[in-house]
Amino acid sequence: MPIHLNTAGAGLMPAAVVDAMTGCLRREALDGAYETETRYADTLEKGVYENLASVLDAPVEDLALFDSATRGWTSAVTTLSVTSRDRIWITPYEYAGSLILWTELRRRTGVRIEVVPLLPCGDLDLDWMRSNIREDVTVVSVPHVPSGCGIVNPVEEIGQLLAPWPCLYLVDACQSVGQLPVSVRDIGCDLLTGAGRKFLCGPRGTGFAYIGPRLRATARPPFHDLHVADMTSNDTYEVHTGSARRFEYAERATAAVMGLDAALRHHLRHPPAVCGPFGETMRDFVRAAVGELPSTRLIDPGTRHASIVTFVCDRVPARRLRDELSARGVAVWVAQGSHTPLFMRQEGVEHAVRVSPHYYNGAEDIDVFARELRAIIG
Amino acid sequence: MPIHLNTAGAGLMPAAVVDAMTGCLRREALDGAYETETRYADTLEKGVYENLASVLDAPVEDLALFDSATRGWTSAVTTLSVTSRDRIWITPYEYAGSLILWTELRRRTGVRIEVVPLLPCGDLDLDWMRSNIREDVTVVSVPHVPSGCGIVNPVEEIGQLLAPWPCLYLVDACQSVGQLPVSVRDIGCDLLTGAGRKFLCGPRGTGFAYIGPRLRATARPPFHDLHVADMTSNDTYEVHTGSARRFEYAERATAAVMGLDAALRHHLRHPPAVCGPFGETMRDFVRAAVGELPSTRLIDPGTRHASIVTFVCDRVPARRLRDELSARGVAVWVAQGSHTPLFMRQEGVEHAVRVSPHYYNGAEDIDVFARELRAIIG
Repeated sequence: MPIHLNTAGAGLMPAAVVDAMTGCLRREALDGAYETETRYADTLEKGVYENLASVLDAPVEDLALFDSATRGWTSAVTTLSVTSRDRIWITPYEYAGSLILWTELRRRTGVRIEVVPLLPCGDLDLDWMRSNIREDVTVVSVPHVPSGCGIVNPVEEIGQLLAPWPCLYLVDACQSVGQLPVSVRDIGCDLLTGAGRKFLCGPRGTGFAYIGPRLRATARPPFHDLHVADMTSNDTYEVHTGSARRFEYAERATAAVMGLDAALRHHLRHPPAVCGPFGETMRDFVRAAVGELPSTRLIDPGTRHASIVTFVCDRVPARRLRDELSARGVAVWVAQGSHTPLFMRQEGVEHAVRVSPHYYNGAEDIDVFARELRAIIG
Repeated sequence: MPIHLNTAGAGLMPAAVVDAMTGCLRREALDGAYETETRYADTLEKGVYENLASVLDAPVEDLALFDSATRGWTSAVTTLSVTSRDRIWITPYEYAGSLILWTELRRRTGVRIEVVPLLPCGDLDLDWMRSNIREDVTVVSVPHVPSGCGIVNPVEEIGQLLAPWPCLYLVDACQSVGQLPVSVRDIGCDLLTGAGRKFLCGPRGTGFAYIGPRLRATARPPFHDLHVADMTSNDTYEVHTGSARRFEYAERATAAVMGLDAALRHHLRHPPAVCGPFGETMRDFVRAAVGELPSTRLIDPGTRHASIVTFVCDRVPARRLRDELSARGVAVWVAQGSHTPLFMRQEGVEHAVRVSPHYYNGAEDIDVFARELRAIIG
């Protein structure tokens, strides 16, 4: 069993998650999948949303489930009404998948896209935001923790700053939910998306979104599926819920949703201390181990950091480092510069090694990582 | 273990499918999900598409995977360029989910929607299609087998009829793939979608689409995800595949795709004989059992039928019949009239019992169904 230091890719599912899923699959194979869905209806239609509401500190009617965070993000963002008179603010930490979407949206609508500048330390320049915000800034998009480096952006403070303004505030929380306290109420955002598979340690093929009432009220309607709409005549249809679930599609993998529910319950019972002293210690162990090697450089902007440490080494390319660490039983990942291109290209980074410990890692794991890294780099 | 006669909802997964999925999940929990994906890359990036190409008789570069058939359908259909000058042809058998989408598309674009009439027997009026087809019919949508009744629409013949015309031809094959031979080459369509979970007996949370070159060439670009596109500068992006995979999203449930691959391989090794004498016999047993009861009425349009039999009973409402059969160990389902509203409302049917045997059912299963049905109806 390798030492897993790739939670920012996907966390290790606890036994409760695997058991929930395999139990569900076995039952489906014996009793039928629709029959199994009926049996688990309480969890699938209610429990999983309530548990998600607890984890995100959000009203249950504002939550929707998807097969990925990307799907949740895109389902909401593509319904935004923007024109060439609007400005969208993004940050240098924007994920390339979102950048592609914004770029396509600009091609279609002429909307203007502006990048919030950074302070020399790498923190977002909140004073610039305060000075430059106007009525025509209609969307602001901020990743809570970018996956290419571990900076924690001050999403609550940005929420306060934006509160007097009419803009919609979107937060990508893929890398923060499960490792940092995330409160939709404290952030004050209109959209917040996350993945089941990362620091929540849920299954792949699960994502979720808080889609707030202000976004739902101003967005164009999505293409509604049959669980939330009916044909009322041969050429009219009616949507029978105002909740965020109208962004969902009806069909979904019951086993995956049961697994997500198990992960949420596991998280609520054992909130990982990664954001507290324990996690900080692990992260700092990694930073120290990397930092003491003369040929390495931490990609480490900002003043607050999550449990994601990325670095480059001028002697060994990142992909070879990952492969060699893997051969020695240590699983890390490669952060591609092209996935956070605005920031990483400025830093001149094409590939960086990414190390992302979680609650299941102890100091001895980091010791092994540090020893093997030294052995490889020499 | 109940007798499963609800394959049109979801088929029973064979052991090979469940094993592929549970094996994958266990490995993910031990080694990490990204690391497991890397290990299975051959199947995930190549094998599953090749097996799907064999099952659908379609070129591999025209295939894409989704988390549901609905997602595949919507991903392609929402990129169609239609205007108020275009006519879309649908049939009375169109699924309500698709109707909602067409209705919303009309609201946005003014496109005209026309319903192909039926012959008195329930078959589609192909002569009407031949006589009325014009250049301004730009989309024709036909379900191969509607889920609310078992008619098999002659999709190959319709394909020949439409071949000289410029219209895009869309086929919903959710209920036919796995029980009938489905050949994209023989049908000559531009879009064909299906679900893993029904007569293919794959997992929930899997869908697929053939998205042909003609549709891809005329469609507006979809919102591309990061596995098929790159930001080439701060404000331009480039798509690096012309294949149907550019309609996919990058993140997906590895275990579900491994399960779908296992289902496809199982199907290729043991093609179910449902479409042959065996399946016809089972279906005819069901039809006979239902037909001999004086208070029942088969919802049975058309001259060719698949392994889906729906009926109403004037003594016992459909949902009570399903529940009572379930209590007696026989799993059937309720087809809602509102899910195939154009046809079912005309028939005056709000709810019908749906019985859909598959290769795992024997004559003794139908005997038990018939006996219990008689006992309940009296």
